[in-house]
Amino acid sequence: MPMPDEYAPWLALGRVKGLGGASFKKLAAHFVDPTRALFASAAELERIDGLHREVIKGLAYFSEWTEVDDELRRTRAAGIDIVSFSDPSYPERLRAIADPPPCLYMKGRLNGADEKAVAIVGSRSASDYGRRVARDLARGLAALGFTVVSGMARGIDGVAHESALQAGGRTIAVLGSGVERAYPPEHDGLYRRICEQGAVISELPVGTRPMAFNFPARNRLISGLSLGVVVVEATEKSGSLITAALAVEQGREVFAVPGEVGASRSRGAHRLIRQGAKLVESVDDIIEEIAPQLIRRGAAGTVPAARMLPPDAAQAAHKIYSLLRENPLHVDQVIERSGLLPAQVLEILLDLELQGFLRQAPGEIYSAE
Amino acid sequence: MPMPDEYAPWLALGRVKGLGGASFKKLAAHFVDPTRALFASAAELERIDGLHREVIKGLAYFSEWTEVDDELRRTRAAGIDIVSFSDPSYPERLRAIADPPPCLYMKGRLNGADEKAVAIVGSRSASDYGRRVARDLARGLAALGFTVVSGMARGIDGVAHESALQAGGRTIAVLGSGVERAYPPEHDGLYRRICEQGAVISELPVGTRPMAFNFPARNRLISGLSLGVVVVEATEKSGSLITAALAVEQGREVFAVPGEVGASRSRGAHRLIRQGAKLVESVDDIIEEIAPQLIRRGAAGTVPAARMLPPDAAQAAHKIYSLLRENPLHVDQVIERSGLLPAQVLEILLDLELQGFLRQAPGEIYSAE
Repeated sequence: MPMPDEYAPWLALGRVKGLGGASFKKLAAHFVDPTRALFASAAELERIDGLHREVIKGLAYFSEWTEVDDELRRTRAAGIDIVSFSDPSYPERLRAIADPPPCLYMKGRLNGADEKAVAIVGSRSASDYGRRVARDLARGLAALGFTVVSGMARGIDGVAHESALQAGGRTIAVLGSGVERAYPPEHDGLYRRICEQGAVISELPVGTRPMAFNFPARNRLISGLSLGVVVVEATEKSGSLITAALAVEQGREVFAVPGEVGASRSRGAHRLIRQGAKLVESVDDIIEEIAPQLIRRGAAGTVPAARMLPPDAAQAAHKIYSLLRENPLHVDQVIERSGLLPAQVLEILLDLELQGFLRQAPGEIYSAE
Repeated sequence: MPMPDEYAPWLALGRVKGLGGASFKKLAAHFVDPTRALFASAAELERIDGLHREVIKGLAYFSEWTEVDDELRRTRAAGIDIVSFSDPSYPERLRAIADPPPCLYMKGRLNGADEKAVAIVGSRSASDYGRRVARDLARGLAALGFTVVSGMARGIDGVAHESALQAGGRTIAVLGSGVERAYPPEHDGLYRRICEQGAVISELPVGTRPMAFNFPARNRLISGLSLGVVVVEATEKSGSLITAALAVEQGREVFAVPGEVGASRSRGAHRLIRQGAKLVESVDDIIEEIAPQLIRRGAAGTVPAARMLPPDAAQAAHKIYSLLRENPLHVDQVIERSGLLPAQVLEILLDLELQGFLRQAPGEIYSAE
């Protein structure tokens, strides 16, 4: 049994028939190292609650090591990196979903700042209006240090990546095909720039052609990587609505951009808003909603504070500190009483907390030390 | 003490300084006939909880009967009717608000069908888009037998009235001035047609000039007359937002029409949606929300069913009746399981109930008899 590479068992897991993200998560919960499942007895595998017979058989009698070897060679030859579920660089937020991929294929680099990510998705046949809003939101998020996640499709996705790059920010494209080449082909230039200033990732092995049936599964990674998903334009049958539904399942925020009544491309977004998605006009509307998650996770701290704090940050910090010296306050109260932008307040709270000026109690209550 | 007219005491109440709708409601709760307050002793009035000293004095020492007499003469001369709080034709829904006017001045006629009313309000400087949406909603509501309520202002208000009339429906204009003439003057033709096909009403006596400070109070009547208020276009400082806030206080539904991000006239509507107003694309979105109120009040029954039921109503009625013969169902379940439009279901339920086929239990549960 050749084992030429530490990633071989991870790729092997990807070749076990019937082994999806959900059954993989069961393995990950059972074994400290989920690849151990490949070397476990059928009897042991049978003790894992809810694991399908097909998967047990596939694991116990796995025999495609030669194919795995070939695949690894092709992956390396194409300059593609592999990030396994056990790697420290596997995105933490993605690890938390119900059906995480055993490994990601990657061009480019992921980094800690990418934990502070927001997805922007929408129609492939976007209107000028939709493109304009996607551009403004992506630029705004990038300027605040957020990584913009999308699917590199034509239309809104492309604009979102492009605008994040232009604003000097990071962006992650999640493909429904192998990461060795751009899909759609006209996004080749964009693809190259994303590889330099972010990452192109996929759970599908090198050489997987873009097939429509892979896109819904891909969408769970877009939402899974993100604190929230912004739907910019979507018809009523748009794949973006799938992404939004997955985001809800994953406990992520859903945002939707309104448009004119009668515009078919806004119908999906309007439906989402009626179902409870937050109506978004500006980046502030997004920040306001994800602020609590950001603070809980401390993800915002991975971006240099200097980048986020406005020139008058010292005064703002003093204001917030003074408020909290009077009374412990909930983060929403701090935002309200300070009169500052939510993004600003969050950065300052984190900063003051890291410097030891503030303490955070459960329920997002801050008090001065 | 001259008493030339049964309405004299009602007009007198309107002249008592400090006596607003809220203190009037206290009188209405205390006396079977609120005009008795004019003939009560100061001692008796003092027993009414929370009644201001100024009002007690104004009532106990009321002396402007000559002025009331003059006002009545001018009102009659202008062909204006008076509807007192005790009149059976005083709108039931308006009677229920916290601060109903003692009497309404009216040109035209109110009728029972007006209990099924929806307000459409919005910007005076409406865009073509806003006008188009207001037109479609007003027409659609009128076609379903709803009375369209608005403020006869330029822009959205005017379009709402106009479109309801064009669709052959009823419409009520609530003015912030006396009802003897059109305001704004260019709506004179519209005013005349509303008087014929609905009513122009105001709580302000004949000869009251349009003054900006009267408009917010007027807005409470627009929402007070209506099951819900639809805000079509509104800047962030629009009076329509006041109407929406009053509607919330009065327990009425608030609807808002989205527009493009960046359009200043949509900013108010977007804010309302973020605060919980229902996003409206079509009349169906409105019906869905006010359906429970309609059924509770039985207001829909005041419109001939023939007007509402589509040609296939008999089949639809049979379908609904069959569903309810299997199981008692909540109105929402009937809508869901029948696959019919909410408006249709409501009409059919009412119709079947009136014909004795169905029974309604508390909590909007329907069962077959």
